[in-house]
Amino acid sequence: MHTQFLQLAIDLAAENVKTAKGGPYGAVIVKNNTIIATSGNCVTMNLDPTAHAEIMAIRLACEKLGDFQLTDSILYTSCEPCPMCLGAIYWARLERVFFACTRHDAADAGFDDSFIYDEIAHLPQERKIPMQHLVVDNADRPFQLWAQQDVKTLY
Amino acid sequence: MHTQFLQLAIDLAAENVKTAKGGPYGAVIVKNNTIIATSGNCVTMNLDPTAHAEIMAIRLACEKLGDFQLTDSILYTSCEPCPMCLGAIYWARLERVFFACTRHDAADAGFDDSFIYDEIAHLPQERKIPMQHLVVDNADRPFQLWAQQDVKTLY
Repeated sequence: MHTQFLQLAIDLAAENVKTAKGGPYGAVIVKNNTIIATSGNCVTMNLDPTAHAEIMAIRLACEKLGDFQLTDSILYTSCEPCPMCLGAIYWARLERVFFACTRHDAADAGFDDSFIYDEIAHLPQERKIPMQHLVVDNADRPFQLWAQQDVKTLY
Repeated sequence: MHTQFLQLAIDLAAENVKTAKGGPYGAVIVKNNTIIATSGNCVTMNLDPTAHAEIMAIRLACEKLGDFQLTDSILYTSCEPCPMCLGAIYWARLERVFFACTRHDAADAGFDDSFIYDEIAHLPQERKIPMQHLVVDNADRPFQLWAQQDVKTLY
């Protein structure tokens, strides 16, 4: 069963290239053995650098289920998720993930997945895209307001 | 100048909580000293676990500029980007990032940013959300098709 859903993700990825929709990636989200959402990579078509296949499928599945979490759902993806998609998988609280190719296959094909994994391990200020912690007044005010809020939706 | 834009990101984060729109986060994207896009966190409002302030601002900025990359743009965010947003920053090719609070402040406020950073360092199969590499037929076919494609938009 897992192999079949993963094969579908690979087919979506191949189709995405053949139809010139975008990058060679596809993703499928399944709940109770039923497909909830599928997507190819839509970065260049949508002019959206976040429109990876996994992110698109997560968004579509949430829209379909009317929820911002995907507990009990499984993600099948043609390639190991990049750090952006990995983060999204945690925020969506997916149950588990199956992937076919690895970050190294993606790197061989010219994609930055492996490079970004390496960058994360560096201190923010030492990354290729410098990330600087500035000390400013009232930086923690939003968190204080959040703590004081009685009625709020946790996520 | 950097402090002013960062202060705006903090104000957006505070406003986001006060108006009950979502989590205590705000982001601002600036190009040539001009604000291109701003957003608060919209996860619960949009039912989209990927709708962090930084991701939303990146999407809006790309839409505004009609491009899937934000070279020469700077991101100001009320808190250190989580791994999902960090990945998006790399895919968008932003020039640099300034942040006010840290992943540890976010953890103290009850958010998973620091936990996800820790998870990334583990082997996929040893993560709290298990990620399994399955060997299936034709896994590399999408990448082969991509390599053979003469006309394609790299991203």
